[in-house]
Amino acid sequence: MTTDSFADLSALRAVLADLSQADPAARQAAKARDAVLTKPAGALGRLEELAAWYAGWRGQAAPRICAPQVIIFAGNHGVAAQGVSAFPPEVTVQMVGNFQAGGAAINQLAGEAGAAFSVHPMDLDRPTGDFTQGHAMSEAELCAAFATGWNAVQAQSDLLVTGEMGIGNTTSAAALAALLLGGAASDWTGRGTGVDDQGLDRKTQVVARAVALHGDGAVDGIDALARVGGRELAGMAGAIARARVLRIPVILDGFICCAAALALEKTAPGALDHTVAGHVSAEAAHGKLLAALGKEPLLSLGLRLGEGSGATLAIPIVKAALACHSGMATFADAGVADGGAA
Amino acid sequence: MTTDSFADLSALRAVLADLSQADPAARQAAKARDAVLTKPAGALGRLEELAAWYAGWRGQAAPRICAPQVIIFAGNHGVAAQGVSAFPPEVTVQMVGNFQAGGAAINQLAGEAGAAFSVHPMDLDRPTGDFTQGHAMSEAELCAAFATGWNAVQAQSDLLVTGEMGIGNTTSAAALAALLLGGAASDWTGRGTGVDDQGLDRKTQVVARAVALHGDGAVDGIDALARVGGRELAGMAGAIARARVLRIPVILDGFICCAAALALEKTAPGALDHTVAGHVSAEAAHGKLLAALGKEPLLSLGLRLGEGSGATLAIPIVKAALACHSGMATFADAGVADGGAA
Repeated sequence: MTTDSFADLSALRAVLADLSQADPAARQAAKARDAVLTKPAGALGRLEELAAWYAGWRGQAAPRICAPQVIIFAGNHGVAAQGVSAFPPEVTVQMVGNFQAGGAAINQLAGEAGAAFSVHPMDLDRPTGDFTQGHAMSEAELCAAFATGWNAVQAQSDLLVTGEMGIGNTTSAAALAALLLGGAASDWTGRGTGVDDQGLDRKTQVVARAVALHGDGAVDGIDALARVGGRELAGMAGAIARARVLRIPVILDGFICCAAALALEKTAPGALDHTVAGHVSAEAAHGKLLAALGKEPLLSLGLRLGEGSGATLAIPIVKAALACHSGMATFADAGVADGGAA
Repeated sequence: MTTDSFADLSALRAVLADLSQADPAARQAAKARDAVLTKPAGALGRLEELAAWYAGWRGQAAPRICAPQVIIFAGNHGVAAQGVSAFPPEVTVQMVGNFQAGGAAINQLAGEAGAAFSVHPMDLDRPTGDFTQGHAMSEAELCAAFATGWNAVQAQSDLLVTGEMGIGNTTSAAALAALLLGGAASDWTGRGTGVDDQGLDRKTQVVARAVALHGDGAVDGIDALARVGGRELAGMAGAIARARVLRIPVILDGFICCAAALALEKTAPGALDHTVAGHVSAEAAHGKLLAALGKEPLLSLGLRLGEGSGATLAIPIVKAALACHSGMATFADAGVADGGAA
């Protein structure tokens, strides 16, 4: 297996400036197939859209999903020292152990979805800089984290979920959204793992200070990621970008994953065309972030765990869409009268 | 395998008057387990509720779902002769052939969900009576159809979906909802497989005539089922009732399945406590019917196919809820600090 690296942010931006596109012929062939399957037109609703979208990215009229992959990136945050989480920072490394031992929610969900699973702890003993004081990551640190994500994607995967673990990372994601989308710090700051009212106030103030320090400076999504992001966010961004190059469709997870994705979109508009939103979480600002990305979530089940959990829960939905699309009989095959006259 | 039969409607009502209940101790044990799993409290949202509900019905603190079952009932409707569907009545038997050959959407969805699948064609050459003229089914016909559903449930199943096929059956379901819940015919009548405006008008008038004929007469849900239901609706009702006796949780499907379920609820309030709503369909009145049943759907993906498709699509969600609940490590097991101080 070869590994790629990025010498500097311009190398990274160059990748995003030249992204592959979906195959319109395959998408059209999928739509033509859908029209003759043994069901009333449109009766599979969103599943029909998913099938056409997926077919376009895979360049096949009737593909199936056989090799989904779930990758978890874990990072620690300097800003956690400001008491922005209900959990101590030690929990990041403890949860990595839990992921490796198979005891976390995402292990069960990935197992149910038949997905390959891996976890990448990213310099957990070296938290990012406190972004209320300066940059979270140097250029070299961001490039290294992005490359970790980039290289974590298996070329044979046919569907990707990126998830994260990192005490403090809803604060990082809120700062990223505030830098890139504007609005008040309170618009983007939520309870994360479950902070109380006092914790939420503290967290909102931290985000406001980040915006005050960095707000006028960020030139694009990648720059904002260096300023207020984290290694696991950069890892997710790298994996999502790599999936685009490999034409592997991606299911986006919750608020933090979507903030990382936003950094790509705000660097190269259209960079998320190969993605769908797996769910809308209970984290207050996630719905607003999805709206900004123009993504309608597949699920809305009140999850707020991270770990790629909501997106992985949506894998069976996307798999089922393609199983219907590619496995159903046509009206002609099955000798069923179509409803053409209606 | 023994088969049960019902001599008359009072035998059927007697079953519904004496339904088993969930085990509160198992439900409580499941909630206690949930509280110590390696995640912030409540972070799995709706999955946590599903796990406690399922555990209560199965009488186990940490069950898993290994044997889901999908049963499709197919029936023909006298009222179809009034032009209430976009498809001719011959499609019912043609689609049964498609189900048996594995070519329909539900075959792919059941396969993806790892569910046992069976289809029960119910006297397709003998449509029910036109319910604008009289009763759809005699007492004996209703009892036989209910028994078909009752006997179709396998005792070893641990999750049930009931689905249907029957040209004209959204009209039957709309009439059933109108009889049992009141409101105007137009409140309950939708486009089904996709009738045009003229077809929708015709369908609404048919439902209005059914209400005019039967509206003051129906004494309970079972009676309403005989008056305006269909064999496949009675089959679904029988299967849902049998699942209750066997303490097999049920995922309800779309408008027609929920109308059949409503007949049970309006005969024996609480008869649907062992059920959850798999999805809300694009059929206009389904959301209103779910609200009347007090059920919040798991999915909302614009499906309007029937065949148990939306409920079967939700099987992996319920399975995943139990996989998390029963497979995750506890804080103590994993050596992870909990957020108790937060």
